[in-house]
Amino acid sequence: MPQESDHGQAIASHGSRIDAYVDRYAARATGMVASEVRALFAVASRPEVVSLAGGMPYVTALPLDVVGELVADLVARRGPVALQYGSGQGDPHLREQICDVMSLEGIEANSDDVVVTVGSQQALDLVTRIFIDPGDVILAEGPSYVGALGTFSAYQAKVVHISMDDEGIIPESLAQTIYALKTAGNRIKFLYTVPNFQNPAGVTLNVSRRAQILDICQRAGVLIVEDNPYGLLGFEGGSMRALRADCPDGVVYLGSFSKTLAPGFRVGWALAPHAIRDKLVLAMESAVLSHSVFSQLAVGQYLATQPWREQIKTFRELYCERRDAMLGALEAMMPAGCTWTRPAGGFFVWATLPEGLDSKALLPRAVAERVAFVPGTGFYADGSGSRHMRLSYCYPEPERIREGVRRLAGVIEQELRVRDTFGPGAPADHIGVDTPGPDLA
Amino acid sequence: MPQESDHGQAIASHGSRIDAYVDRYAARATGMVASEVRALFAVASRPEVVSLAGGMPYVTALPLDVVGELVADLVARRGPVALQYGSGQGDPHLREQICDVMSLEGIEANSDDVVVTVGSQQALDLVTRIFIDPGDVILAEGPSYVGALGTFSAYQAKVVHISMDDEGIIPESLAQTIYALKTAGNRIKFLYTVPNFQNPAGVTLNVSRRAQILDICQRAGVLIVEDNPYGLLGFEGGSMRALRADCPDGVVYLGSFSKTLAPGFRVGWALAPHAIRDKLVLAMESAVLSHSVFSQLAVGQYLATQPWREQIKTFRELYCERRDAMLGALEAMMPAGCTWTRPAGGFFVWATLPEGLDSKALLPRAVAERVAFVPGTGFYADGSGSRHMRLSYCYPEPERIREGVRRLAGVIEQELRVRDTFGPGAPADHIGVDTPGPDLA
Repeated sequence: MPQESDHGQAIASHGSRIDAYVDRYAARATGMVASEVRALFAVASRPEVVSLAGGMPYVTALPLDVVGELVADLVARRGPVALQYGSGQGDPHLREQICDVMSLEGIEANSDDVVVTVGSQQALDLVTRIFIDPGDVILAEGPSYVGALGTFSAYQAKVVHISMDDEGIIPESLAQTIYALKTAGNRIKFLYTVPNFQNPAGVTLNVSRRAQILDICQRAGVLIVEDNPYGLLGFEGGSMRALRADCPDGVVYLGSFSKTLAPGFRVGWALAPHAIRDKLVLAMESAVLSHSVFSQLAVGQYLATQPWREQIKTFRELYCERRDAMLGALEAMMPAGCTWTRPAGGFFVWATLPEGLDSKALLPRAVAERVAFVPGTGFYADGSGSRHMRLSYCYPEPERIREGVRRLAGVIEQELRVRDTFGPGAPADHIGVDTPGPDLA
Repeated sequence: MPQESDHGQAIASHGSRIDAYVDRYAARATGMVASEVRALFAVASRPEVVSLAGGMPYVTALPLDVVGELVADLVARRGPVALQYGSGQGDPHLREQICDVMSLEGIEANSDDVVVTVGSQQALDLVTRIFIDPGDVILAEGPSYVGALGTFSAYQAKVVHISMDDEGIIPESLAQTIYALKTAGNRIKFLYTVPNFQNPAGVTLNVSRRAQILDICQRAGVLIVEDNPYGLLGFEGGSMRALRADCPDGVVYLGSFSKTLAPGFRVGWALAPHAIRDKLVLAMESAVLSHSVFSQLAVGQYLATQPWREQIKTFRELYCERRDAMLGALEAMMPAGCTWTRPAGGFFVWATLPEGLDSKALLPRAVAERVAFVPGTGFYADGSGSRHMRLSYCYPEPERIREGVRRLAGVIEQELRVRDTFGPGAPADHIGVDTPGPDLA
C-alpha cells in the first residue's frame, strides 16, 4: 500500500501529529474549525478547474502600471512616514476620504468615528470581540457570510438565523425571533446583515424593509452591524441608501476597498457610534498595534489621484457581463427542479437543488468534472443548507462561466438519474468539515 | 469660562458622549483600557519635545529609492497576485525566507510551521486567543512589554510577573512561582518572554539561564512564547541562540521585520509546533482572512534582492552609537541615586529613580521641559513600577538624546529638591490610567 506508506512519511517529517497541547487550548479554540473558505483557495488555483467557488475580485481590470507608479512615488516622497508605525485608528486623511466614499450611500459621517482595519474582516472580528461573551446571541441572515460565521464561532457566540427571501430579511421573522429569544432569556447583542447583493444569496434588502428593520431593532435595543462590501457594485444604476444613513446611533457600518480597488492592501473600515469607536481603537491596538501605513497611504493616494468612480463603473460593467453569462447559462442548461437567485449586483448567485440532492456530496464529483462551487452548509451555523450552493461569477471570464455551468449541470443531471434509480442517498456526514480539495475527489 | 464652553460644543458635535452601549459590551471589553502606548504617539510627534518614549525604528536609514523601485517592480510584474487575497498562513516563499532569517539564531525550522502575521503583535494576539480562557495565568518578566500586557488583559488573563535582573529572568523565581501557582490551583498557560535586549528593561537572558528556563518549563508543562523582535540588533558581535533552537516542541517563537526592515509593512510571524500552527492559521483566517499579499511580497522581494544582512549591520551601528550617547549622557548628568541598565542591543534603557520619586508624577513636568519617556507602571500588570521609566534611544539623533537626558536630569534634580524640602509626595493616583499628552502638562 504505497499511498499509506507515503502518508506515514509525511507524518514523521513533522514529528508526531498527536497534539501535545490538546488539553491546554482555550474553550474558544474548539469553535475554530477549518472553514470551507480554506479549501477554496486550493480548488480555485488549479487552472483546469473552472472555479465558481471563490469570491476573488477581478483585479486584472485595474490599471496596474498606474498603481505601480503610485506606490513608488509614495515611498520616494513619504517613505519615512509610510514605512513607520501608525496610529491605531488609522491615517486621518484616509479616514476623510472614506467618508467621501460612504457619502455615495447617503451616509454623513465624521472621520473621527472611522477606524481603518485589516480588511472589513478585521472590523467584524473587533466588533465581535468587544460585544460577545460566550453564549450571547448574534442574529444573521440565513444563509450568511461564511467568514462572519467563523468569527462568531471563534468568540463562542450563538448564531440564530433570520429567514430571508428575494427582498432580503423578512421583517416579521426578525421581530418574532427577537421576541422569542428575549422571552427565553437570551442576550441578543447585534443583528449582522449584508443588505446589498448579499454573500452568499445575492439578494438585496428592499427600501421599505430597511425602515422596518431599523424600527424593529431600535425598539428592541438591538445594534445592527451593516456589512457592505458590495454596495457600490450594483448593475442597475445608483446605490441603495445605507441603513447607517438613517440611524447613526444604532448601526456599526463595515466597509472595504477589497472589491472597489483590490484586496491586496487589506484596507477596510468600521464606522461606529463614538463610544463604540473608542473601544474598537483599543481592540485594534491590542490586536495589531496599527494597520500598515504603507497600505493606507497607497489607497489614499489612489483615491486622491485616480478616477476611482470610473474604475468602479468599469468593475460594475465587467461583473454585470459575467452575471448575465451565468444567469443565461443557468437558464439554458440547469435541469428542471433547480432554482437560483437573480442578483442585481455583487458577486454571487445562490442556487437550490431538487429535493433529495446534497450539494456537499456533489462537490467531489463536480471537482472531478473540473468545476467548483461552495456547498450551502458552510453558510449556516445550524447545519442546514444542504440543498444549496453558492456560485460566484466575479472571477472567471464569461466563456469559462458558461463552461463551468455546463459541467455543473451535467453533474447534477447524473446525480438526478442516480436519485431516480436508487432514491435519495444518506446524509453526507462522512465527508467531514472540510471541503475536499480536487486532489481528494 | 470659554474653555468649558468649547468642550461642551465638542461633546455636542458628536451627539451625546454618554455611552448607550455601556451595559452591552463583552466582559473582556472592561479590560480594554487606554494603554500608555497611545499617548506616546501624540507626545513624540511634537518637534520641540525630545521623545525618549516611543520605540519607533529609524527607518530613514533604509535605501528608500531602492524600496520604491522594488514595490513598483512588484506591481508591474506580479500585480494580479500581489493585489489579490492570499492564504491565511502567508506566502510560501516568504515563509522559507523567514526560516533563513531564523537560522541566524540557530533555529532549524520547516516553513510549513510558520504563520505570517500583521506584525508580531498579531502573532501575540492569536497565540493568546487560542490558549487563554478568562482567569488563566500567563507568566511574564517584570517589567514586560506594554503591548503584550494589553493583549493579555483583552483576553482576561491573569498576568504573574517573574523577577529579573541584569541577566534576565531569575530561574529560581520562575520555578518557585510556578510551584506556588500550581499549588494554589491556577492554570498556567505559558511563559511570555523577550529574551534579547528586552522591552522595556534592555537586558538579555544569559546562556546558562536559557537552559535552566527551558528545563523548568518543560518539566512543568509550561509552553514558552519567545518574542524576539530585537535579537539581530546586538552591538557586540553575533546573536544569541534562540530558546526555540533547543526546544522545537515547547516554544512558540515570534519574529518581526519591523526592526530589521520597517514597521510599515506590518510583517511578523509565529513559528509554532505543528498542532499549534494549525490553530493559529484558523485564528488568523477568522481575524483578518489573510495578510496583505502586497506587503508580504514586498518584504520577500527585499530579502531576495537586497543585502539585508548589511542593512541590519547598518542599523546595529546606528543604534549602538545612540546607546552610547544615552549611556554617556546618563553617566554625566543624572543625579546621584538614579540607576539604569546597560543594554547590549535593541532600543531601550530602563532607569530607576531615587526613593520617594514617582515617574508618572514626573512625566507632566518632564514634558513641560520638552522631554518624554514612558513611566514604569505601564510595564507591570500589578500597578508596581512607579520608580522606573523606559528611555528609548532608537529614534532621536545622538545630539538630541544628550539634550533629552540633560532636560530629564534637570527635572529629576528639581524633584529631588522638592522631596528633600517637603518629603515624598502622595501617590500619583489622581493622574489616571493615561499618560497625559504634552498639551495637558
